[in-house]
Amino acid sequence: MYSLGIDYGTNSVRALVVDVDTGAELGTWVYDYPSGQKGILLDPTDPDLARQNPRDYLVGLEGAVKGALARAAEHDGFDASRVVGIGVDTTGSTPIPVDVLGQPLAFQERFRTELDAYVWLWKDHTGHAEARRITETAARMRPHYLAKCGGTYSAEWYWAKILHCLHSSPDVFDAAHTWVEHADWIPAILTGTERPAALRRSVCAAGHKAMYHREWGGYPDAEFLAALDPRLVRLRDALPNEAHSVADAAGGLTVEWAGRLGLPTGIPVAVGAFDAHLGAVGSGIRRGTLVKIIGTSTCDLMIAPLDADCADVPGLCGVVPESVLPGQFGLEAGQSAVGDIFNWFVEGVKPAGKGHAELTAEAERLRPGESGLLALDWLNGNRTVLVDQRLTGMILGLTLHTTPAEIYRALVEATAFGARVIMERYEEYGDAVDRIVNCGGISDKNPFVMQIYADVMGRPVQISRSAQTCALGAAVAGAVVAGTDAGGHDSFDRAMQAMTGVRDTVFEPVPERRAVYDRLYALYRRLHDAFGVPGANGDLYDVMKDLLDIRDEMRRESHVA
Amino acid sequence: MYSLGIDYGTNSVRALVVDVDTGAELGTWVYDYPSGQKGILLDPTDPDLARQNPRDYLVGLEGAVKGALARAAEHDGFDASRVVGIGVDTTGSTPIPVDVLGQPLAFQERFRTELDAYVWLWKDHTGHAEARRITETAARMRPHYLAKCGGTYSAEWYWAKILHCLHSSPDVFDAAHTWVEHADWIPAILTGTERPAALRRSVCAAGHKAMYHREWGGYPDAEFLAALDPRLVRLRDALPNEAHSVADAAGGLTVEWAGRLGLPTGIPVAVGAFDAHLGAVGSGIRRGTLVKIIGTSTCDLMIAPLDADCADVPGLCGVVPESVLPGQFGLEAGQSAVGDIFNWFVEGVKPAGKGHAELTAEAERLRPGESGLLALDWLNGNRTVLVDQRLTGMILGLTLHTTPAEIYRALVEATAFGARVIMERYEEYGDAVDRIVNCGGISDKNPFVMQIYADVMGRPVQISRSAQTCALGAAVAGAVVAGTDAGGHDSFDRAMQAMTGVRDTVFEPVPERRAVYDRLYALYRRLHDAFGVPGANGDLYDVMKDLLDIRDEMRRESHVA
Repeated sequence: MYSLGIDYGTNSVRALVVDVDTGAELGTWVYDYPSGQKGILLDPTDPDLARQNPRDYLVGLEGAVKGALARAAEHDGFDASRVVGIGVDTTGSTPIPVDVLGQPLAFQERFRTELDAYVWLWKDHTGHAEARRITETAARMRPHYLAKCGGTYSAEWYWAKILHCLHSSPDVFDAAHTWVEHADWIPAILTGTERPAALRRSVCAAGHKAMYHREWGGYPDAEFLAALDPRLVRLRDALPNEAHSVADAAGGLTVEWAGRLGLPTGIPVAVGAFDAHLGAVGSGIRRGTLVKIIGTSTCDLMIAPLDADCADVPGLCGVVPESVLPGQFGLEAGQSAVGDIFNWFVEGVKPAGKGHAELTAEAERLRPGESGLLALDWLNGNRTVLVDQRLTGMILGLTLHTTPAEIYRALVEATAFGARVIMERYEEYGDAVDRIVNCGGISDKNPFVMQIYADVMGRPVQISRSAQTCALGAAVAGAVVAGTDAGGHDSFDRAMQAMTGVRDTVFEPVPERRAVYDRLYALYRRLHDAFGVPGANGDLYDVMKDLLDIRDEMRRESHVA
Repeated sequence: MYSLGIDYGTNSVRALVVDVDTGAELGTWVYDYPSGQKGILLDPTDPDLARQNPRDYLVGLEGAVKGALARAAEHDGFDASRVVGIGVDTTGSTPIPVDVLGQPLAFQERFRTELDAYVWLWKDHTGHAEARRITETAARMRPHYLAKCGGTYSAEWYWAKILHCLHSSPDVFDAAHTWVEHADWIPAILTGTERPAALRRSVCAAGHKAMYHREWGGYPDAEFLAALDPRLVRLRDALPNEAHSVADAAGGLTVEWAGRLGLPTGIPVAVGAFDAHLGAVGSGIRRGTLVKIIGTSTCDLMIAPLDADCADVPGLCGVVPESVLPGQFGLEAGQSAVGDIFNWFVEGVKPAGKGHAELTAEAERLRPGESGLLALDWLNGNRTVLVDQRLTGMILGLTLHTTPAEIYRALVEATAFGARVIMERYEEYGDAVDRIVNCGGISDKNPFVMQIYADVMGRPVQISRSAQTCALGAAVAGAVVAGTDAGGHDSFDRAMQAMTGVRDTVFEPVPERRAVYDRLYALYRRLHDAFGVPGANGDLYDVMKDLLDIRDEMRRESHVA
């Protein structure tokens, strides 16, 4: 039997056909979104804006699934009628304003040219002022709302985007019956449950991004929303009191979509979740495993049993029951930039015209510490544990002999130090890390980076076996909602056991390197605290902030002039 | 009438023929030293070692002077018999071990292959352990010796080199009757006064580099030298009690050299001085003028009347009576790297293959502060005011959008902030700066850098008119020692008035830019103090040092392995 995983990324959607008994990946296909710039709708006058066209999701769904099935069909004995379940993951928070039938407002002729009626992609930052407003209001009225999301509500998240729409396009806001996450909408479309009253919402999206928490009655209460803006209260009424984990089905595949995709009618489609969370599932996450999905940025996930005394962990992006697996807290952290930093150096600085491969080969020959360099990996701010976008990167220790390869290595090491800060925060709050499983592009291709992570973090580092771990995690969810009667699995434990795994190569910390990195990490922490923690070092905390203030002021003046 | 300036640089010697009444430069010639690598003798096993061949100085002297005279002779009415005086400047501290006749030991067959018998070029750092020893001993026994040289005795200086020779080549040390500075030796050779008993030593070299100070009886006393090593006492006995300023003649041009050079016999040759000090003269230094000789590094000079209450200025390289002009203290400071930093970025990092011109054009379009970057210009340590080689460079404020041109501008600004620290130190000790005169390659060619210096320092910045300011300063000294009877000048004031000048273009601070730079400079000072001043910020001062310790340890291990 087979399960189908559908993984919606920022620029494309991937489908993956997996054997539920062996985890063998029979076919995969990637479909690039046709609209905008690599699938993103931009506004040249507003660099914060990033939208998507919901039609791309539907076109891409059909294209990717058919492509993957065609590839699978090249295998002897494969038969699409033996696909028993579907799982879906997407980026997020990526909310879509929809009408009372659950159709995106963007599909209406009158909103065809109104970007606010389209999908608000995760990386849209137009709601930054609203995010600050939400943080301040919650700090005053509902501090427990903030405690579960690390203390700061982000511009990337659900309510900040909706509140911004209310301010920027009141007509769109008024026309929207509700806002659904991309991760909610795709399973709903596939199962014909897109009418808001019928729609099952993802606890992963709701819990991490929309201040949903079962213990306080679900989504934020009307009084709190009214304090932000009374017009938000209407939206609260359209939201359910319960959200669902990926262990629940959103429904069964409709006749229409079964026909379009060439799949059996009625097979269950799991409730959606975010890509990273299903990536953790595809990596075989378990208690004590830190899964790092490493790409341009990272998402770092751990789980802890629901009956464990799971503290709110300051600085984490969220501690949400069942956001990764049923019966477990999902604990999410992240680094704002990792691959993006290396790419900045190669493509932005273009040192001596050298690419990643050449710099890696040179950097690999260096010993820890011998360059005398130390960097802070904050070129895109700091997500965990400082939760501060207004932090910047730094390179210290430069001499007239410093080489590009030395800088490259220092940047890699800085991201590893940043990863260690997150790991130590987890451990400080009771979540011991006994192994690290990395997945994502960099993990796949870069043993140099992986070894540095092992040496810096002092834990064995494993690599997820699959090259498309998020889609695999979605397929695992599909196999679980299918259940054993259909030839699927009766639990995530059994499904992950059968379908996921790590590669043979394990990156073990090398004691001598580890010892040097312990010393460098102690210095990194001093810089980290001096520049990142208010009051830790009165003289320096303001330096980065003041620089950004001056920068913003000068740029505004430039714009005026 | 004409004066001849002879300027010995690191890689070549330049001669310049100047009209003493107008400052017109009639002819100049550069002669590259033939030995070693661009004139420097290196030891592949010891990167600290940098020596020169004294024969190069003599060959170069003849070549450069004849070349300059030939060029001058292309002017109607020029006649070499109307050259009335000669001045000489050299690098330093660049001491030469000589025998009892004042001949370099390197000329002896038995020392032909012994690098320690050659000239110890200013940038030779083999004596770093000895320099520390001298600093510690002076701090204990003779703190006033240190007070006049900024608090730290450098590996580049006279006694550190001699003491190192005593340790590394006792036979050379024993064979040396005395050690003469390059600046002493050339005028002595030209005037036949090279026998140590007859030789007039430069107060510029003696005062800034050899702990000579008239008020404590000249060179360091025997007891102090004995504490370093009893064998040094012999050398003290060979040193005179008095050193001379450039207002004094070393003697008259010998028949032999007059013949070789084609100049009148007996014309006076001024006592030598260092290039930067005569560069200040060639820039028309006066009270309230800060002269910056800007090249790969800088030398920053001011003067103050001998009867002024001239304090020891902490962090300065020296406060030495008459080291620049008679009747004036010479106050020397410097930045360890300026042009070297820009060259590191262009030639070491090679960003996008862009050269200085392209980066300058792009950086020029930026407004102060708009990059959000701030750098520390310590890529070669900090000479003034921290006097600390174990400091390193830093770039802060990096984002994923940071461009090479932004970094380039931040590096230029960092050197300007470093220059401002020096200026403020001068002013703090009573030496107000009302204008800045820059000379050297960068000043000549880079209005972009000059404007940033004006904006950051808040003073009008002028550029020395001559493109060979050091040689011109030497010619000024030649005109003064010639005296009015011979058609020269009776004072440096009058000679500088007649022979030197600045260009028409003055870089005036732009108030709006100055205001932004004041804010950035305040941030620079916080970083400067946090990382550079012990105790200013307990958390961070050690960070750079610890990194260097780790680096050195790792490199030693690499070397062993």
